[in-house]
Amino acid sequence: MNNDCLFCKIIEGQIPSHKVYEDDKCYAFLDIFPVNYGHTLIVPKEHVVTLYDISDESLAHIFKVAKKLGPIVSEALDCDGITFNQNNGHYQDVKHFHLHLMPRYAHDSQMIRNNRPNDDKYHLQALAKIRNKLKKDS
Amino acid sequence: MNNDCLFCKIIEGQIPSHKVYEDDKCYAFLDIFPVNYGHTLIVPKEHVVTLYDISDESLAHIFKVAKKLGPIVSEALDCDGITFNQNNGHYQDVKHFHLHLMPRYAHDSQMIRNNRPNDDKYHLQALAKIRNKLKKDS
Repeated sequence: MNNDCLFCKIIEGQIPSHKVYEDDKCYAFLDIFPVNYGHTLIVPKEHVVTLYDISDESLAHIFKVAKKLGPIVSEALDCDGITFNQNNGHYQDVKHFHLHLMPRYAHDSQMIRNNRPNDDKYHLQALAKIRNKLKKDS
Repeated sequence: MNNDCLFCKIIEGQIPSHKVYEDDKCYAFLDIFPVNYGHTLIVPKEHVVTLYDISDESLAHIFKVAKKLGPIVSEALDCDGITFNQNNGHYQDVKHFHLHLMPRYAHDSQMIRNNRPNDDKYHLQALAKIRNKLKKDS
């Protein structure tokens, strides 16, 4: 754990989050500033920064979880697609590797932006739908 | 090969492209409608559509190439970061799996958009810089 890292603190439970999924190697939770309804981050529990730092094994696990969660989120939220996104460098706000799982809707246009509220009711609605679907499929 | 697939035709050389990199399993080339200077697509040679269709082995190889090309493109084009992006569903324009490697610049803001020209000189400048750096590092 990196004591200065926001995501390490979330993984450790020192900062609350809307958890979507957890296993021994990774943690997934709703983005506090979602670009769309159900915007989820998948992060390795190990503190690594960029794509160039993460081990092949850990990256494979992150994508195993992405392959599992993508269809579940799509069905739970009835969206029209999923965009996976991963930033390195200037636009990586939190310096702990994270894969964005961004539900896409036909009405959101090619542009997606941080225009959604950090609203707890909004988060909890999405979370309930995703977790309910996750439970049914597990 | 899927005879109706644009990317399969590019891989087979039936349609010209600005090739960045090639090996026995994947092909990387400049996006014809770049969101930024040096916008590259990394695609498996095998025709698969979404993240949910690609094999774990093929995906691991795509990311091995992404890890190799990311720092090379960054250095060649002196950009401020790389965003990797992969669309599934409504916003996946070409239904052949592709990983976007998008150079980011501090001036491009959080928004990236298809506002760059399909201009051959523009493409060739980026390509020459990337391929030159690739050769030096190989």
